[in-house]
Amino acid sequence: MNPIEGHLPSRSPLHDILAPTGIAVIGASSDSTKRGYKAMVGLIKDGYRGEIYPVNPKADMILGVKAWPSVTSIPGNPQLALICTPAATVPGLIAECGRRGIKGAVILASGFAEVGGEGAELEREMMAKAEAHGVRIIGPNTSGMFNLHHRINLLALDNVKPGDVGIISQSGNMLLSLALEAQHNGHVGFSTYVGPGNQSDIGFNDYLRYLGEDEHTRVATLYVEGFRDGRKFLEVAREVSAMKPVVVYKSGSTEQGQKAASSHTGALAGSYAMTVDLLRQSGVSMVQYSDEILPVAEGLGLLQKARGKRVAVISDGGGQATIASDRLAEAGLELAELSESTRAQLREVLFPQASTVNPVDVAGSTDANPSLLATCMEIVAADDNVDSIFLVGMFGGYSVRFAESLLGDEMRGAEAMVDLANATEKPLVIYSLYTPIKPPALRRLHEAGLPVYASIEHSVRVLAALGDRGQHLAQYHSHARTAAVEPLPALDAMFRQARAEGRDLLEYEAKQLLREHGVVVPLELVARSEAELAEAAARFGDTPLAMKIVSRDILHKSDAGGVRLNLVGEAALHEAREAILASCRAYDPDAEIEGVLVTPMAQKGVEVIIGVIRDPIFGPVLMFGLGGVFVEILEDVAFRAIPLSRHDASSMVDQLKARRVLEGARGEAAVDKEALVDLLLQVSSLVEAYPDLKELDLNPVIVNADGYAVVDARVIVDRETDVSDKEAH
Amino acid sequence: MNPIEGHLPSRSPLHDILAPTGIAVIGASSDSTKRGYKAMVGLIKDGYRGEIYPVNPKADMILGVKAWPSVTSIPGNPQLALICTPAATVPGLIAECGRRGIKGAVILASGFAEVGGEGAELEREMMAKAEAHGVRIIGPNTSGMFNLHHRINLLALDNVKPGDVGIISQSGNMLLSLALEAQHNGHVGFSTYVGPGNQSDIGFNDYLRYLGEDEHTRVATLYVEGFRDGRKFLEVAREVSAMKPVVVYKSGSTEQGQKAASSHTGALAGSYAMTVDLLRQSGVSMVQYSDEILPVAEGLGLLQKARGKRVAVISDGGGQATIASDRLAEAGLELAELSESTRAQLREVLFPQASTVNPVDVAGSTDANPSLLATCMEIVAADDNVDSIFLVGMFGGYSVRFAESLLGDEMRGAEAMVDLANATEKPLVIYSLYTPIKPPALRRLHEAGLPVYASIEHSVRVLAALGDRGQHLAQYHSHARTAAVEPLPALDAMFRQARAEGRDLLEYEAKQLLREHGVVVPLELVARSEAELAEAAARFGDTPLAMKIVSRDILHKSDAGGVRLNLVGEAALHEAREAILASCRAYDPDAEIEGVLVTPMAQKGVEVIIGVIRDPIFGPVLMFGLGGVFVEILEDVAFRAIPLSRHDASSMVDQLKARRVLEGARGEAAVDKEALVDLLLQVSSLVEAYPDLKELDLNPVIVNADGYAVVDARVIVDRETDVSDKEAH
Repeated sequence: MNPIEGHLPSRSPLHDILAPTGIAVIGASSDSTKRGYKAMVGLIKDGYRGEIYPVNPKADMILGVKAWPSVTSIPGNPQLALICTPAATVPGLIAECGRRGIKGAVILASGFAEVGGEGAELEREMMAKAEAHGVRIIGPNTSGMFNLHHRINLLALDNVKPGDVGIISQSGNMLLSLALEAQHNGHVGFSTYVGPGNQSDIGFNDYLRYLGEDEHTRVATLYVEGFRDGRKFLEVAREVSAMKPVVVYKSGSTEQGQKAASSHTGALAGSYAMTVDLLRQSGVSMVQYSDEILPVAEGLGLLQKARGKRVAVISDGGGQATIASDRLAEAGLELAELSESTRAQLREVLFPQASTVNPVDVAGSTDANPSLLATCMEIVAADDNVDSIFLVGMFGGYSVRFAESLLGDEMRGAEAMVDLANATEKPLVIYSLYTPIKPPALRRLHEAGLPVYASIEHSVRVLAALGDRGQHLAQYHSHARTAAVEPLPALDAMFRQARAEGRDLLEYEAKQLLREHGVVVPLELVARSEAELAEAAARFGDTPLAMKIVSRDILHKSDAGGVRLNLVGEAALHEAREAILASCRAYDPDAEIEGVLVTPMAQKGVEVIIGVIRDPIFGPVLMFGLGGVFVEILEDVAFRAIPLSRHDASSMVDQLKARRVLEGARGEAAVDKEALVDLLLQVSSLVEAYPDLKELDLNPVIVNADGYAVVDARVIVDRETDVSDKEAH
Repeated sequence: MNPIEGHLPSRSPLHDILAPTGIAVIGASSDSTKRGYKAMVGLIKDGYRGEIYPVNPKADMILGVKAWPSVTSIPGNPQLALICTPAATVPGLIAECGRRGIKGAVILASGFAEVGGEGAELEREMMAKAEAHGVRIIGPNTSGMFNLHHRINLLALDNVKPGDVGIISQSGNMLLSLALEAQHNGHVGFSTYVGPGNQSDIGFNDYLRYLGEDEHTRVATLYVEGFRDGRKFLEVAREVSAMKPVVVYKSGSTEQGQKAASSHTGALAGSYAMTVDLLRQSGVSMVQYSDEILPVAEGLGLLQKARGKRVAVISDGGGQATIASDRLAEAGLELAELSESTRAQLREVLFPQASTVNPVDVAGSTDANPSLLATCMEIVAADDNVDSIFLVGMFGGYSVRFAESLLGDEMRGAEAMVDLANATEKPLVIYSLYTPIKPPALRRLHEAGLPVYASIEHSVRVLAALGDRGQHLAQYHSHARTAAVEPLPALDAMFRQARAEGRDLLEYEAKQLLREHGVVVPLELVARSEAELAEAAARFGDTPLAMKIVSRDILHKSDAGGVRLNLVGEAALHEAREAILASCRAYDPDAEIEGVLVTPMAQKGVEVIIGVIRDPIFGPVLMFGLGGVFVEILEDVAFRAIPLSRHDASSMVDQLKARRVLEGARGEAAVDKEALVDLLLQVSSLVEAYPDLKELDLNPVIVNADGYAVVDARVIVDRETDVSDKEAH
C-alpha cells in the first residue's frame, strides 16, 4: 500500500535502447516457428507505437509491414536492433548497425563464450565491432527483452500485463515461469524484462541501475547465475535498494549447482555464502527458493518495509497459528508482545475462550462474523509493540464454507482491511487457505493492492523480507561506512621493501601495521641478540611470555620448533632462545634468522578469526568467524564487502550460528563485542589504504570480556600487480 | 504408477465406527449456520447409503429425514453418533449412546482438557462413561471426520472427491487447506479424514493402523501437534510404512511453535529434532513445510519409492537445471553419473551443443520436437546408474509458447512418458513451468497417474521422499533390530542394591554393566587399600594411568580434587592416592570413600557422547553426538528409539552435521565407524534388559582409528517405580 518511494536520477545510457522509438528486427520471418516471426507478432499485437523495420533480403512484406533487404537500407531512426540470425553473422551485423546509427542490439544466438573456444573468439570479435561502432550489446545467448509500458514485447509472451515488477533473468525459462505464475496469480504485472545472457557488454549492474531509474518499476527482481563486475553491482544495489526493493535469487548454492551454472552461461560463481552476505549488506532481499521469487517481489513491491521484526498474528485456527509461529521463529522474526490494553480490547470483541496472547486465536468468535478479523487487525495495528500484522486462516472463505449470507460481512471486513492498510505504515500480510479459489473478499483485497498468499511459508518469507528491508534502511541512514585511512609513509615503505625482497610481511611487521592504525596489539619485542633479550626480560618482568622465531624463511613456526610458551624469568628466556635457534637451524640450515619475538601470553578467551581477501568478483572482503572446528568443519563464517559500517560489523557477529559462544555460553562471561566491532572496523579502514595488501589473516584473535588480543597476524603482499598501475587507479 | 503394495490384515476396531452403516446426528438442525445442519446436508448430498437418524427433541423432520427426540428413541442399528451439542451435555449423551448400542461418537465441542481445570474434569467424566458403556471417542475438540468411499461427509465439504489420500489432522484448517489445494490441483482425492482432537480415547496410532488396513488408502497423511502414546505410534508407523507411505507434518519445530501448539490441543510436545529422528526411523516421510504436505503425499502415493538417491535430470533450460541441481544437492540427492553408452545415445538424438552430462540440457533440440524429452527420459531410465528421473522445464507448454502445431508431438511425448512410467520401476517426477495453466499434455499425464508439479522445490522434496522410502524399505528387510539381552543375575543384584541404598550406579559398576554385555571398557582396578594399589601398579607396569576417587557421595570428582592424570610408576600412584584421599576428605568430611580407581589414560581421538533416556512419550531413546561445543552449542545430535537396527546405528553417525570430524578432517585418520556402530548396538540391546536403568550417559567416549575407549559412564537408577510392577509388564 506504499507509494513508490522514489527513483534514482536518470543517468543510465540504457533508456534509449530499452525504450526505443524504432526497432529493426534482423531475421524477421513469416515462418511461425521462428523467433523473427514471434518478435514481429509481439510488437504488432501489443501495439508498439514506434517504427518497426523487418530486415529480410527475401521478403517485401512481413506480417503486413514493409521489409528491408539489409540493415543499411532501413530509413528513419531505429535505436534498437533485435538480431535473430545465427552467431556467425553477428559481428558483421553489429558493424552495419553501428554505421546505421543503431545504439543497441539484442543478440539471441548462442554459440559464443558459453561454449568456449571458437565461440569465445567470436564473442571477442563481436565486442570489437560493438566498441568500434558504438553499439551496446544485450546478450548474446539471451532470451530477449520486453518493456510492456512501451508495448515492446520482443518475446511475444501472451498474457503478461504491464505492471511494476522489473525482471532481469539469466534464465529464459525462469522468466516464463514467473510470467505464468503472475498470470495465474492474476495481479502481478511487469515493467521491463531483460535476459543479460553472457553479459559480454551490458551487465547486471547496468540493468539494475536502469530499473532503479525506471518510473514504471516498483521492485527490481533478478535471477543471477554469475556477476561480471560484482563490486560495481554491490554499489549500484546499495543505491537502488535505498529507493526501491531489489530482490535477487542467486543460483549455485551448492557445488553441484555451480557446475551446472557455469556450463550454462559460462558465469564465474564465487562462494554462495559470501555472495549472499555481500548482497544482503547492499540492501538486497535475497530469496532462497525459486518458488518464493514472485511472492516476495509482489509483497515487497506493494508493502515495501516494516519498522522491525515483531509480528502480530491473528488466526482463526490454532493449528495454522502454530505453523505460523514455527516459521516466524525460523525466519528470525518475533511474536510481538501485545500490550495489556491491546489484549483488553481484544477480549472485549472476542469469545472468552479466545487466546489474546500472540498468536491471537479467535477460537470461533468470527464464525458468524468474519469482519471481526479486521477489527482484531485494527486493534493490534495500534499497538506500539507491533511492527507488522499477519492474518492466518480462512478469511474470504467464510461465505464459501459456512453460509453464503456471510458474504456481506466478509466484504465489509475486506474494506476495513483496505482502509487499515491505507491508514497505517505497518504492513498487513494476509494468508488465506481459500486463496486458490479466489473468493470475492480476497479479490477485493488484491484489487486494492494488498497481496494475498496461498502458503504460510511464502507469507513468512515476505514478512522476513519486509523486516530486513526496514532494518537495512534504518541503518543505511544512520551508519556511515568507514573511510579509508591515510596510508603512512613508513608502512608504505615496509610494503615496498617486502615486494622488493619478494616476500610477505613478517609477523611483527603485520602487527606494526595494525598497531599504527589503532589496533590494540600486545607489546612484542624482537630480540636480535642476547643483549636485546635481556632488555626484553627486564621490560616484561615476571609476566608469562611466548617466544617465536622471526625468519622470512620459516613459515610454519611450530613445525620448526620455533615456538615456546609460558616462559617466566630471564633464565627461561635465554634457555628458550637457544633451543629455538638450534631447532630452527636444524630444521632449515639455510634459513635467514632475524631473531626471536617475545610477547605476553594471551589471556583466556574465545578464538576468533578475521581475514581479508581481494575477491576477483567482489573486491576486498572481510571475513569473520570463530576459530577451530567452527570455521574448519562448520564453515560458520560471515562476509562483508569493505568498507563496512558499524552495523555491518556488528551484524557479522550476530549472524554466526555459534554466536552463543561469544555471548557467554558454557559458563563464561560474554566477550566485549564493542571492542571486537571496533577491531573489524579498523581492519576494514586500513585495508583500502594499502593496495599491496593482498590478504590479511588475524588467526587467532583471542576475545574475552576485557577486550581482545591479536595473537598471530599474517599479511600476504601482492607481488604480481604493478604498483604504479594501482596508484593511478 | 505403482499399485498399492498391500494392506495390513484387518485388526483395527475402528472399521465399524469409521465406515458405519447407520449414523445418529445428535443436535441435528435446520438452521443453516449450525454444524448439525451441515452434517445432515453432507450425508444427504453425498448420498450416504446407510441410515441417518437426526436427534432433536424440537423437530419431527430435518431436511426431509424423520427426526427422533432422543438417542434412546432411535430405532435400527446406528454404529456412530455425531455429537454437535455443547460440552456439558456430552457425558450424559455418551452414556445414552452406549445403552443404545452405538459403538463410537464424534465429539465436536471444545471446552475439555485443552482449556484445563473444569474442562479436564469434564473430559475425565466423559471418558469414564465411555469406558463404562463401551463407546469409543473421536475427539473431543475435533473438526469431525469423513469417509468418502462410504459417502460419509460429516464436514459437508464441497468439492472433495474420493481418492486414496487418507488424512488425520489435529487442525481443521489444515484439512480445509489440503482440500482446497486438492480441488485446485484437480487430481488428488481423499479416502478417510479424522480430526483426532484431544485424543482422549482414540489416538494417532489407532487411526494410522486403520489407514494401514483401509483398502481405499494408498498414502496416510498426518498433521500432528502431539502424540499421546508415541512409543505405540512408532511401532504402528513401522508396520504401516512397510506397506504404504506414511507422511507426517509435525508442528512445533520451534519453542515459539510448541507454545502455540500446547495452547491449541493441550498436546505434550517433545523435542522436535528427536521426534523427527524417531519418526524417520519408523519409515515415516517427514515433511518440513506445510505447503509441501499435499505434493509429497501425492508423489509418494503415486510413485511409492526409488531404488536409491541418484537422479537423472532432463532439462530444456540451463537456468532451471541449475536450480534443480542446487535443490537436489541440498536434499542429499546425487546427480547420477550417466554411463558412456547412455551419453552416446543422448548425443545421437540431441543437437551437438546439448549437454549430455547430468543435468542433461537439450539446448534447443526439443524446440520443434518436444516428444524428444520422452525419448531422453527413456534413454536415462535404462541406465543402471539412475534411480529416478526428473524432467525440468516447459513440457506441456511447447504448443502454447512456440506453435500450436506442436500439440500433436507433445501429446505423443506424454503418451511415451506414460508408457515409460508403466514399464519402469524408476519414478518419473515431472516439473513444468506450465503446470499452473494445465495444458493438454500435462492433463494427460495427470490422468494417467503421473503427478506434475508447479515448483522445482516441491518436486525435489518428492524425489527425496521417494529415495528415503526406498532406502528405508531396503534396510527394513535386511537389518533386523537388536534383541534385548538376557539380564544377568549379578547385574540385576547390582541395580537392586543401588535402589536399596537410594543411589545411582557407581562409575565402576556402570562400566561393569557395559563390560559384561560385550562393550570394550579399558581395564580398571579399584584399589581399596595400599596393598591393592601395589597390585594394580604391578599389573599396569609403566602405562600412564588415570586415578579417580570412588565414593557414592562424591558426584563431581574433579571439583573434589578426586582425579589425577598421567601417573607413571608405583611411587606416583601412591603419592596420587594420598593426595586424592586428602582432598576428598577435606571436600566432604562425611563422604564414605570406597577407594580409588586406576585405569590407563585414553588414547588421542574424537570425543563422542552416547546417552540413553526414557522419554515420557517415546520410551527408551538412544542419543549420539560429538562432545564439547557440538552437543552444547550446536545441538548436533541424533536420536533413535531403542531397539536399533545396524542401519539405524550407522545412520546416526552419518546424520551429524559435523560427521567430517569422524571421517578424518583436520589431518586425522577416520575413526573406526564399525566399532562405534557395534557400541551403539550393544548399548541399545542392554538397556531393555534392565528396567531400572533410567538414564545412561557415556561421556566422553574417545573414538579413533583403532576403536574406542569409554572414559566415563554414568547410570541413573530409577528409584520411583515399583520394580515388581515393571517386571510384570
